Amino acid sequence: MSIEGTIRIRAIVPITGLSEEALENRKAALDRYRALGTEIDFAVIRVGPSSIESVYDEEYASHEVLCEVVRAEKEGFHAVILWCAGDPVIEAARELVTIPVVGPGEASFHIAAMLSDRFTVLTTLASLIPMARRQVHAAGLSEKLASVRAIELPVLELEIAEEETFEKALCEVEKAIKEDGAEAIVLGCLGMINLSEKLADHFRDKGVSVPIVNPGLSSLKMAETLARLRLSHSKITYPTPRKTEGLPKVCS
Amino acid sequence: MSIEGTIRIRAIVPITGLSEEALENRKAALDRYRALGTEIDFAVIRVGPSSIESVYDEEYASHEVLCEVVRAEKEGFHAVILWCAGDPVIEAARELVTIPVVGPGEASFHIAAMLSDRFTVLTTLASLIPMARRQVHAAGLSEKLASVRAIELPVLELEIAEEETFEKALCEVEKAIKEDGAEAIVLGCLGMINLSEKLADHFRDKGVSVPIVNPGLSSLKMAETLARLRLSHSKITYPTPRKTEGLPKVCS
Amino acid sequence: MSIEGTIRIRAIVPITGLSEEALENRKAALDRYRALGTEIDFAVIRVGPSSIESVYDEEYASHEVLCEVVRAEKEGFHAVILWCAGDPVIEAARELVTIPVVGPGEASFHIAAMLSDRFTVLTTLASLIPMARRQVHAAGLSEKLASVRAIELPVLELEIAEEETFEKALCEVEKAIKEDGAEAIVLGCLGMINLSEKLADHFRDKGVSVPIVNPGLSSLKMAETLARLRLSHSKITYPTPRKTEGLPKVCS
Amino acid sequence: MSIEGTIRIRAIVPITGLSEEALENRKAALDRYRALGTEIDFAVIRVGPSSIESVYDEEYASHEVLCEVVRAEKEGFHAVILWCAGDPVIEAARELVTIPVVGPGEASFHIAAMLSDRFTVLTTLASLIPMARRQVHAAGLSEKLASVRAIELPVLELEIAEEETFEKALCEVEKAIKEDGAEAIVLGCLGMINLSEKLADHFRDKGVSVPIVNPGLSSLKMAETLARLRLSHSKITYPTPRKTEGLPKVCS
Amino acid sequence: MSIEGTIRIRAIVPITGLSEEALENRKAALDRYRALGTEIDFAVIRVGPSSIESVYDEEYASHEVLCEVVRAEKEGFHAVILWCAGDPVIEAARELVTIPVVGPGEASFHIAAMLSDRFTVLTTLASLIPMARRQVHAAGLSEKLASVRAIELPVLELEIAEEETFEKALCEVEKAIKEDGAEAIVLGCLGMINLSEKLADHFRDKGVSVPIVNPGLSSLKMAETLARLRLSHSKITYPTPRKTEGLPKVCS
Amino acid sequence: MSIEGTIRIRAIVPITGLSEEALENRKAALDRYRALGTEIDFAVIRVGPSSIESVYDEEYASHEVLCEVVRAEKEGFHAVILWCAGDPVIEAARELVTIPVVGPGEASFHIAAMLSDRFTVLTTLASLIPMARRQVHAAGLSEKLASVRAIELPVLELEIAEEETFEKALCEVEKAIKEDGAEAIVLGCLGMINLSEKLADHFRDKGVSVPIVNPGLSSLKMAETLARLRLSHSKITYPTPRKTEGLPKVCS
Repeated sequence: MSIEGTIRIRAIVPITGLSEEALENRKAALDRYRALGTEIDFAVIRVGPSSIESVYDEEYASHEVLCEVVRAEKEGFHAVILWCAGDPVIEAARELVTIPVVGPGEASFHIAAMLSDRFTVLTTLASLIPMARRQVHAAGLSEKLASVRAIELPVLELEIAEEETFEKALCEVEKAIKEDGAEAIVLGCLGMINLSEKLADHFRDKGVSVPIVNPGLSSLKMAETLARLRLSHSKITYPTPRKTEGLPKVCS
Repeated sequence: MSIEGTIRIRAIVPITGLSEEALENRKAALDRYRALGTEIDFAVIRVGPSSIESVYDEEYASHEVLCEVVRAEKEGFHAVILWCAGDPVIEAARELVTIPVVGPGEASFHIAAMLSDRFTVLTTLASLIPMARRQVHAAGLSEKLASVRAIELPVLELEIAEEETFEKALCEVEKAIKEDGAEAIVLGCLGMINLSEKLADHFRDKGVSVPIVNPGLSSLKMAETLARLRLSHSKITYPTPRKTEGLPKVCS
Repeated sequence: MSIEGTIRIRAIVPITGLSEEALENRKAALDRYRALGTEIDFAVIRVGPSSIESVYDEEYASHEVLCEVVRAEKEGFHAVILWCAGDPVIEAARELVTIPVVGPGEASFHIAAMLSDRFTVLTTLASLIPMARRQVHAAGLSEKLASVRAIELPVLELEIAEEETFEKALCEVEKAIKEDGAEAIVLGCLGMINLSEKLADHFRDKGVSVPIVNPGLSSLKMAETLARLRLSHSKITYPTPRKTEGLPKVCS
Repeated sequence: MSIEGTIRIRAIVPITGLSEEALENRKAALDRYRALGTEIDFAVIRVGPSSIESVYDEEYASHEVLCEVVRAEKEGFHAVILWCAGDPVIEAARELVTIPVVGPGEASFHIAAMLSDRFTVLTTLASLIPMARRQVHAAGLSEKLASVRAIELPVLELEIAEEETFEKALCEVEKAIKEDGAEAIVLGCLGMINLSEKLADHFRDKGVSVPIVNPGLSSLKMAETLARLRLSHSKITYPTPRKTEGLPKVCS
Repeated sequence: MSIEGTIRIRAIVPITGLSEEALENRKAALDRYRALGTEIDFAVIRVGPSSIESVYDEEYASHEVLCEVVRAEKEGFHAVILWCAGDPVIEAARELVTIPVVGPGEASFHIAAMLSDRFTVLTTLASLIPMARRQVHAAGLSEKLASVRAIELPVLELEIAEEETFEKALCEVEKAIKEDGAEAIVLGCLGMINLSEKLADHFRDKGVSVPIVNPGLSSLKMAETLARLRLSHSKITYPTPRKTEGLPKVCS
Repeated sequence: MSIEGTIRIRAIVPITGLSEEALENRKAALDRYRALGTEIDFAVIRVGPSSIESVYDEEYASHEVLCEVVRAEKEGFHAVILWCAGDPVIEAARELVTIPVVGPGEASFHIAAMLSDRFTVLTTLASLIPMARRQVHAAGLSEKLASVRAIELPVLELEIAEEETFEKALCEVEKAIKEDGAEAIVLGCLGMINLSEKLADHFRDKGVSVPIVNPGLSSLKMAETLARLRLSHSKITYPTPRKTEGLPKVCS
C-alpha cells in the first residue's frame, strides 16, 4: 500500500552562505511545483562552506550534512534531498538511512537521459567542469553527455546578477546545441532555480524545443515519486555501516 | 510557471487481450498511487495484438498506438503513457507530439539506476530476454544491467495464476541477487503491477532491502513529474516529421 | 553443403514515392555488382510513406514490409534486403522468417568498421542525425562512429539534383575527414546509390584513399554471402513469435 | 564501375605444418562456396611456425606473410586473405598494400554481430583465450562477446581427430548457449573449416537455429565483396609507410 | 632536473584502531621495499574511525586526513600516500596540495591492468564489494575488472587471524581464477600487506604465475616514481579551491 | 622478500638509426632519474628499421627484439624495457619470458590516467595517430583519451631540430588543453626524452600545472617498481608458448 496522506520531504542545504531571501526564493519555487499533499522544509547546516565550488567544500560540509540526514529520518521525514547539484556525500548518506536520499544532479541527469540522447550540463565556474563530468560518469551516463560548460559566475552571485546569469547561460546553451550537439540541458547548480523557466520560454518563443532540466525541481519530484511508491536505495548497494563512530546524537 | 490545477494523463493500452477485470485492476493500482490533482484514464486500442510478446506484436500495435497518442494530445492530455514495459513505438510517438510520452520500461530502468549500481530485469517469457536487453542498451544503461531473467509465464496468465507468478518471480529474484549480483529488480511486464508490493514485503520481512521497481507506477510518477515541470522530450532528438502520410484523423 | 545453383534475393522497397526511373536505376546498379548466379528482384510496397525521413515513416511502412518479408520466404527467396538505409522493422522481420534479412545500414556500418577505425555516416536531412546515431549504437559500433553529417537534401531529390547532391556530399565528406577524424564514409541513404563511385573516384584522383561504403551494394553482397553460406540470424536473438495476429495472408 | 570478369583472391597460409591433404581440404571447401568468376589460390610460407598457437607464432610468421601480401598485390590479385583466425599482422599488411587484406577472425566477428546480439568464440587451446578476447576488443565488438571457450585440442590435431573435435566442440557450444548466453558461435580456427556444417546440421535437427560462423568461408565472401565493390581499407587508418626497409624483393 | 637526494614520503593513516604492532608491521614492510634514498614516515589521525569499512567511515576520517595532507606539504614532504585501499578523500586532497597524493587502490588497479587483461579485487567484507566496484569504475578500468570478492573478515582481524586470512584469501583467489576468469589479483585492504608474498609464493610453487598486487607496496613505488619524476596530478583536473573555509591551521 | 641489492634493467632499442650521441643522451637522462641501486644498460638491435614510424616498422624489428628480450632474461636482468613508445611486440615478448616487460607507452598512459581524467598523446607524424589511438584502446583507457596530436616531425629529427620540436610541441599542447579538454599530456615518442622538463617548466612558469608524462622515464620507474616488488605480467594473460620455433639461440 502507498503512503496515505502527506509526504514530508526535507531539503538539507549544505552551505552557510545562502541569504534568507535566496532561501525564501527556493521555498517559493518548490511550493509552486510540489504535489498537493507534499510538505517540504529546509534544514540549513550551521558549520560548513559558504558555497560548494570544489570537492573540498563538499568534504567540509559532510559532517553536518550526514547529521542532518540522520536527524530527518528520526523526525519521520519520508525523503531527503541533498540540496546541491553536486549531490554531496550521497553515498555515505544512503548508508546511514533507509529513507530515500535524492541527489538533484543525479535526478536531473536521468531525466535528461529520458528526454534526449545527448545532454549538456551547465555549471557555474570552469573549475567545476571536471567534477561535473566525474559525476555523470559515476551515474553511468557518460555515453549521453554531450559536454559540460561553465558560465563563469560564482554560485552566490547567480541570483544577485540575474540578468547577467541569464545572458551568459543563454550564450552557453546556444553553443552547446550548435557546437556540441546537445539535445537537452541540465542546469548544474541550484542557484539557477529560476533560470529554467526563462530559458525554456526563450527557446519556445524561438520555436526550439529543447528540455531545460532544473535539478532542484527534479529532486523534488523524484523525492515525491520515491516516497509515494515506497521505494528507496538498495541496501546491497549502500549497506548500513557496522559502526558509525563519530556520528553526533545532535547536529551542531 | 507550472501547470495550475489538474494534470490529465492518458495510458494507452497497446493490446486487445486485457480483460475488463485486469483493466480495473490497473486503474485501481494507479488510483492508489496518483497524486492529488492527477486524473488518469485508459485508452485501449481496438485492432492489435492480444498481448505483446515479440517485436512483431509491437509492430502490429503501432498504427493504433500512434493514432491514440496523437488523439490524446488533441484532447488536451498533459502526458501519455505507452502502457507496456517494452515501450512500443516510443520514438515515433515522440516525433508526432510535443506532450511527454512516457515509457514504463525506460522510466523504471532509470529509477533502478538511481537506487542501485546493478539491476536485473524480470520478464515473462525467455524469448523476451534479448528484447529487454536491447531496450536497456538503447536507454544507455547496459553498464548497470546485472541480468535479464524470465519467469516463463505468458503475459495474460500472470494475473490468473497469481500465486504461481509470485513463487516463480521470487525464485528468479533470489537467483538474480545471489548469482548475478543484482542490487535492485525491475519488473519487466505491466501484468506484474501488483507483484512489486508483495515481493518488497517479502524481502522486507526477511530483512533484505532491495528495491522492486514497478514499471506501471514508475511511468505514472514520471508522467506527473514531466507534466508538472512542463518538461517534454527534446525535439532535436525526436523532430516532428515533415510529412505524416497514413496517420488517420480518427482511430479505428 | 552450399546452395547449388542460383541465389534469389528480394529487395523490399518500403516507400511508395520511388519513380520507375529511379527503381530502374537501382536495378541497373545491382545488376552491375551481383555475382553470377544471383537473381535479384524488387517488391515495392503499395501502402506506405512516399519516402522514409522519420521513425514515423518507418512505422507507417511496417505492416506492408513485414507482409512482403513473409511472402518472399514463402516464394522461396534465399534472402531479403530491407531496401532503406534505416533498416526499418528489421527486428520484427527477423522474428517472422528464417531466411536472412539484411539491413543496408547495418551491413555498411560493419563493412566500414572492418576497413577503418572511425567512420562518418552521411545522411540526407539534419533531422535524421539522431536516428542514424541510435542505429549505430544499436549495432554496437558507437565506439567507431566519428560523426553523422547531413547534406540537407530530401531523399526524393537526391537523384533529381545529382550535381547538387555530389557537391554537398563532397563538402561534408571533406569536413568529416578534416574536422571529425573520419577515416571512412558510410552513405546513409539508398538514394545515394550512384554517389559512392563518384566520390571514390574524386578522392582517388586526389590521392586520398578513403572507403566510401554504399549501403545498397553492401546489402546485396551481404545477402549473397549469407545465402551462399547458409547462414541466417540467430533464432535465440530473434525468436519466432508464438502468435502472429494481424499478419495478412496476402499483401495489399 | 565494378571489376569486370574474374576476381582473383590469394589466401596466404602463415604456417608450415599444414599437410598437403589438409590444404586440399581447404581448397575443396572454398571451391564449394566461391562465387562463379572467383579464382582462389593458396600461398604457403616457407619459413615460419608449424601452427599458430601464440602471439609469438604470429611474430615468427610475420616476415614471410608480409612478403607474400606484397607479392600478391604485385601479381595482380584483387584481395588477400590472411589464412588464420587470429588475423596475424593484419595492420602491417594493410599498410603495405592497397588491395583489401581480409582477416578471417575479424570478418566472422562482424558477421556474427549482424546475426545476433551476443556471440561466443570457440578456440582450440585454453591458452589462446586471452588472445581471442583481445582480438574481439580490437575489433570494437567486446560488448557483443558472450565468452571465449576452448576445446583443448591443438590446431594440427583438429582434422586428424575429427570425431573428437566434433564432440568437444558440440559440448562447448552447448555450454556457451546455456551458461554464457551465446546466441551465435564463431569458430576460432581455420582447422575447423568442415565443422560449421556439422554443427549447424546438428542444431537444425534439434530445432535450435543458432548461426555457426566459419572464419574461412566468411573471409572468402568478404574478400569477394570488397573486391567486387572495389573497396579496400582506409589509407588514413593504415597509411603507406614512408620507408619499408627490410622488405625483401622476393619471398624466401 | 630530478629531485636530488632524499625523497620524503608521508603515509597518512586514516584510522585510529591500528595497534602499535600493526603499524610497526607496515613500517617494516615498506622498509624492505623502499628505494635507497627514500624516507617514509606515518602520520596517524587522532579523531576518526577505528577502521574503514564503509563510505561513512571515509567521511568521518576526511577532516583529519585533509588536514594531514596539507601539513605534509607544508613540512616539505615530496608525496603523500592515503594509507587505505579505498583511497579516501583523494579528490579533495589533490585539490588542496600540489605534491602528489597517491591512492593505494588506484595505483594497484593500474599496475594490475598493465600486467593482465582482467583482474579481481579481493576485499575484506562483502558489504564493501559495491564500494570497490565503484572505485574501479571511477578509475576508468571497469572493462578490466573480472570480479570483486570478499574474504569476510573485518579489517582489524586480518592480522590477528593470519592463518585464517591466508586460507580464506587463497580460496577466493582460486575461485576468482577458475570461475571469474581473473588473470591477476589486487588485494583490497592494506591490512593484507604481508599476504601478497605468501599468496605469490603459494602459486609459484604450484607453477601458476598470477600477479598478486599489493596496494601498500604499489603506493610506495608510485609515490617514489612521481616524486622522482617531479610529476603530480593535473591542476586542471583538481583545481586549487578558491576558498578553504574550515581547514584548520593545525591538525587535532 | 624483495630483491636484495641491485636491480638490473635492460632497455632494448628496436631501431638502428639512433646516433651514438642520441643514445648517450638517453643514458644520461635515465642516469639522472634511476634509483640508487638500479643499473640500466641498452641493447640496440643490429637488423631492423632505422626508426619506428609504422606498424610495418614494428614488425620488421620484431625478430631481433624478441631475441634480445630472451637474451636479457638469460643474462639475469630483472626487467626489460621495449625502448619505443609504441611498445612493439610487447605481447609476444611477455609470452617468451617471465621477467617484466615494460612498454613506455602503456606505462605512461596509466600514469597519466592516475594524474588526470583526460590526457592527450603527442606523437611525431600525423600518420601515427591511428596507431596511437589503437594502443590506448588496447590498454583499455579510451574513455580517458582526449585526443592524439602530431607535431609533424619525423622521429630522427626531433633531437636535431630541438628548438623546432619544442615550439611545435608547445603549440600542440596548448591546442590540446584549449580545444580538446586535455588535462595531462603523454609524450608519444622516446625521442622527446628531454622535452618533458622543458614543457613542464614552461607551463609552471605560466602558472599552469599540467602533467607532462615522459614515456622513457615512466618505463624506467615502472621497471624498477615491478622488479623491486617481484611482480611480472600474468602468465594466464601471456602464456609461455608450447613451441618457439625460429627463436634463435643468439641474436644477430
